[in-house]
Amino acid sequence: MDTGRAPVTVVGLGQMGSALATTLVETGHPVTAWNRSAGRARAVADRGVRVAETPREAITASRLVVVCLRDYAAVHAVLDPVVDALAGRTLVNLTSGSPEQARETATWAATHGVDYLDGAIMTTPPGVGSPEVMFLFAGAEAAFTTHRPTLAALGDPLHLGTDPGLASLYDVALLGLMWSTMTGWLHGTALVGAERTPATAFTPVALRWLATVGTFLTRYAGQVDAGRYPGDDATVDIQIAAIEHLIHAAADRGVDNALPELLRDMMRKAEAGGHGADSYASLITVLRPSAGAR
Amino acid sequence: MDTGRAPVTVVGLGQMGSALATTLVETGHPVTAWNRSAGRARAVADRGVRVAETPREAITASRLVVVCLRDYAAVHAVLDPVVDALAGRTLVNLTSGSPEQARETATWAATHGVDYLDGAIMTTPPGVGSPEVMFLFAGAEAAFTTHRPTLAALGDPLHLGTDPGLASLYDVALLGLMWSTMTGWLHGTALVGAERTPATAFTPVALRWLATVGTFLTRYAGQVDAGRYPGDDATVDIQIAAIEHLIHAAADRGVDNALPELLRDMMRKAEAGGHGADSYASLITVLRPSAGAR
Repeated sequence: MDTGRAPVTVVGLGQMGSALATTLVETGHPVTAWNRSAGRARAVADRGVRVAETPREAITASRLVVVCLRDYAAVHAVLDPVVDALAGRTLVNLTSGSPEQARETATWAATHGVDYLDGAIMTTPPGVGSPEVMFLFAGAEAAFTTHRPTLAALGDPLHLGTDPGLASLYDVALLGLMWSTMTGWLHGTALVGAERTPATAFTPVALRWLATVGTFLTRYAGQVDAGRYPGDDATVDIQIAAIEHLIHAAADRGVDNALPELLRDMMRKAEAGGHGADSYASLITVLRPSAGAR
Repeated sequence: MDTGRAPVTVVGLGQMGSALATTLVETGHPVTAWNRSAGRARAVADRGVRVAETPREAITASRLVVVCLRDYAAVHAVLDPVVDALAGRTLVNLTSGSPEQARETATWAATHGVDYLDGAIMTTPPGVGSPEVMFLFAGAEAAFTTHRPTLAALGDPLHLGTDPGLASLYDVALLGLMWSTMTGWLHGTALVGAERTPATAFTPVALRWLATVGTFLTRYAGQVDAGRYPGDDATVDIQIAAIEHLIHAAADRGVDNALPELLRDMMRKAEAGGHGADSYASLITVLRPSAGAR
């Protein structure tokens, strides 16, 4: 069946690679895939993915080669022996790793005449294909522009910049935001839960509040970039007083306070640094390296 | 001018009390206010608020009395001498305090024939009057239903339950979520900032990601209430591996890692408790009191 959609090769058929391959095939792309073991390959073959016998056979089937493996060691183990076949094609590497690994792999690709994009998938496998899910990319802008229509079948593709390490850096930064938010939510859930409020009653209120918190982040982003943190909405001093109420209420109910106590200590450091009358954005001074520390 | 809107009394004209009084007057409510000092009273008088000479004069002007003072000690100092005038009226207390203070004040009010609602304002003074801003209330449901149309002039009024401590408890729980989220965002901002990415470039991506995280919270709320945490999207073990990538990338760039290290330690406690193959929602077992601990 010729749908006119660009052929895509998918290397790696773990949970995420399988979701990528089947989503692409369902949106009309001819998909050729390869996986080290045959189990999952059979499952995607049943859904219309052509399964290649070797990495070389898979790679030569498409101009666009998407790789999603366990780690960068696996990427090199599979691709190094067939790098000659990759020359002139675009390699999109969605394997999780560090910014340094992404940069090293981009250099390796450039050496061998391979266009390279590093990417990060901001969802779990069932979310692949949703137009609101972010797929983060970094590296050669021309390769991104060329393959954007295909990548858009997987989610909303965002190009962060030409430094190939940026997708991985954003990935861990966003996961950190996720863990902080989820743990803060769990602490609040435990607190109201001590008064017999179900999580399912607290959470809709928490989600509405998170939308309000989002407006604070937008305001504070400008303050961080400007290096000035006017405390005209709420000062660090006021928030130190308020977090003591939280710690007290949680302690009274036997809820673990390690998280709010750490946050209070960070607020106190900002206060000690002269930011007591500034906004919460001034805590960036506690977090980031001092000038010349690198 | 008779607009047909219910008269309201506002006691306390700090930044928040002044915002409440002027918002009510701008939406057509006759407002009588009292403040210990005259400075701010003059400012709101210029905007159409009638300023009373004494608390008693203010209270007797309206069936609905809204109090917003520095703390509960101030509430009792102002209202105890005039509690006879409050009898038969509704007292809405928006002063920040603990659940215990709210409950004690509700008992005091009931003893004196005063209908009582305790409340929390989920915004800063400039946000008062926005229909999307949450005003949380707890206490007598009949009083809430009666005065809801007036309270809706200030924001979106939500009644959490008849326990008068619930508004204050939600307040600190939501602030805890805010501090966790803001600090996680600042950590990510510091991390990408080490690679010259401005906060204003990172933040729109962070806000889109927070919306995705919100869908995780909704799923996990059901797991918390059910006491079962199936790890079919992402397990604690996988997230322990992933947070090591974050800690490593941040350490390499001189970013303070106290927050992600604490989160990793909490994940490890959940893993040690047998939740390695469960979802992140299983961290509730680390946070909340064990059975019989209270």
